[in-house]
Amino acid sequence: METIKDIARICGVGVSTVSRAINNHPDINPETKEMIMQVIKEHNYIPNNSARNLKRSESKAIAVLVKGITNPFFNDMIGIIEQETQRKKYSFILQRVEENENELDVAIQLVKEKKLKGIIFLGGIITHSSENFAQLDVPFVLSTSDIVNEEDNKAPLWSSVSVDDFAESYKMTDYLCKAGHRKIAIIAATKGDESIGKLRLEGYLKALGNNNIRPDKSIILHMEENKDSYSMETGYRLMKKLLKERDKFTAVYAIADSLAVGACRAITETGAVIPRDCSVAGFDGLEIGTYYNPSLTTIRQPVEELAKVTIDLLFNIIRKNGQHKKVVLPGELLVRESTREI
Amino acid sequence: METIKDIARICGVGVSTVSRAINNHPDINPETKEMIMQVIKEHNYIPNNSARNLKRSESKAIAVLVKGITNPFFNDMIGIIEQETQRKKYSFILQRVEENENELDVAIQLVKEKKLKGIIFLGGIITHSSENFAQLDVPFVLSTSDIVNEEDNKAPLWSSVSVDDFAESYKMTDYLCKAGHRKIAIIAATKGDESIGKLRLEGYLKALGNNNIRPDKSIILHMEENKDSYSMETGYRLMKKLLKERDKFTAVYAIADSLAVGACRAITETGAVIPRDCSVAGFDGLEIGTYYNPSLTTIRQPVEELAKVTIDLLFNIIRKNGQHKKVVLPGELLVRESTREI
Repeated sequence: METIKDIARICGVGVSTVSRAINNHPDINPETKEMIMQVIKEHNYIPNNSARNLKRSESKAIAVLVKGITNPFFNDMIGIIEQETQRKKYSFILQRVEENENELDVAIQLVKEKKLKGIIFLGGIITHSSENFAQLDVPFVLSTSDIVNEEDNKAPLWSSVSVDDFAESYKMTDYLCKAGHRKIAIIAATKGDESIGKLRLEGYLKALGNNNIRPDKSIILHMEENKDSYSMETGYRLMKKLLKERDKFTAVYAIADSLAVGACRAITETGAVIPRDCSVAGFDGLEIGTYYNPSLTTIRQPVEELAKVTIDLLFNIIRKNGQHKKVVLPGELLVRESTREI
Repeated sequence: METIKDIARICGVGVSTVSRAINNHPDINPETKEMIMQVIKEHNYIPNNSARNLKRSESKAIAVLVKGITNPFFNDMIGIIEQETQRKKYSFILQRVEENENELDVAIQLVKEKKLKGIIFLGGIITHSSENFAQLDVPFVLSTSDIVNEEDNKAPLWSSVSVDDFAESYKMTDYLCKAGHRKIAIIAATKGDESIGKLRLEGYLKALGNNNIRPDKSIILHMEENKDSYSMETGYRLMKKLLKERDKFTAVYAIADSLAVGACRAITETGAVIPRDCSVAGFDGLEIGTYYNPSLTTIRQPVEELAKVTIDLLFNIIRKNGQHKKVVLPGELLVRESTREI
């Protein structure tokens, strides 16, 4: 098998000249180029085969499909998953799924094209039926997304790992109630959300109920479809709106830290002081929550563990060392500077 | 070509049962499984071919190689590059490069394995020779990394896009000098850095010189190799160290916003107020800089434009619509709440 160096030697030119010829570079004599291309053709040299070492005998890859990549929380997850994947000598394909796309169709297409060994769905999926999932014939793991599983009693066809978003959200809201807050606003996902956002809202409502607090719709703010995302900017904008109802709440719970940071900024800009004038809480446990002024009360998701369990579950199946299972990891309520008892 | 549905029909079982057989799932009758596997074999059914539609005739992919993925700035870049790649119907492979790995070797290997159409190097590379680069025989773009190009006069063998890190860093330092600061500490990259970190430090030193300020080594802090990263945590820790020399500076310039945020937190925890007691400036223009308390003075890198130009340059070469070029985009000095005149 010829390498680019062999071709250069045969042609009596430098490697960079061969590269210029291959890459259709303008800075090369046309005759030289023709000569090089002729040699390449004669020797059946395939440019892509220039690798010095072939470390792996087989091309192995897994893909991560992400819906809702805007939440910085997923960036941390992706970083760790990608690192673990490479440690296992697999390539890592990152695929965004648009809001209006069916992630299963995308996955099936990708498996075919890239000969994937496995798939991780990050966020998103919640309402697909088992029958749909069965069409995906490589192992897959649902990571940080929960599923309404129709067949809970059977051994599952896939693995999943997440915190219990409902229970953790309940925990946060209940903490705020026990701290004396009776008027707790929430910055929630879109109204049509069928995923994590829905579970976190339900946890909030349940905790209010158990503390004999009637939900006040005027302080339940939803993101807008096709406009808002899990970003600081959205938190800032929704909080500006909420501030028009300033007398209706003593605490704000945003269902993501990114939203909470934006909300904090909006409150601070009015001259109010957090938590003296208003408590703010988030969810996720982003690094920024530790370093923000004030530091942010939140539910910490065990991001490292979530990512590692995701990879372990997937590779157990790929290597036929285990069977699918559902793993629920505990979140942790971190009470920091941004909330107080009243 | 049989699909998984055909196999299920032929076997007289459900699709999910076929899937279980393929995936070596324990919850299936061994005889049923054997029967299914036999049918699969007879029909030459390849599980991976179950895609309902074959949207693309050819498998096309580009890869992004990242060194130093810890800086959140790269996450924004990656997100946009990935989105643009998918818009062009290419797959997107993300590959981390470890500190001790040669990114060119990784790239050459990856081109071979994945039949890549192009490569983007994000961060990192700066000191490789053109001869080394010439061995990479697919088009590539160096994004947000600057290169010491030995052959500046020839038409380049690759494209690059970045801000002028030296000039932008000079701009920030000069602004602090003109605001009356003569004692400006810096949180810089590792001492051995040969990349962006080095350029930013040089810009700082040059600006001090032009303002007749002698650099004070005791307030030039470097990250530690194999320990520190472009994270808030590192900024926080280095600032704690720097605070022992509290009388030696009136301003701190951190070469990344992530570091600056950590530094702000460390200063605030001493009871000092930013910018009254100390000015703090960053670099990058992360979203958090807008929403932090106080909002952060920084150099905004045009992240969207950087990512889009990166993709445009690469696809111009892939599609033979243009030739390689070096693009330098302007950064923008954003003076916000964290710095003041003294």
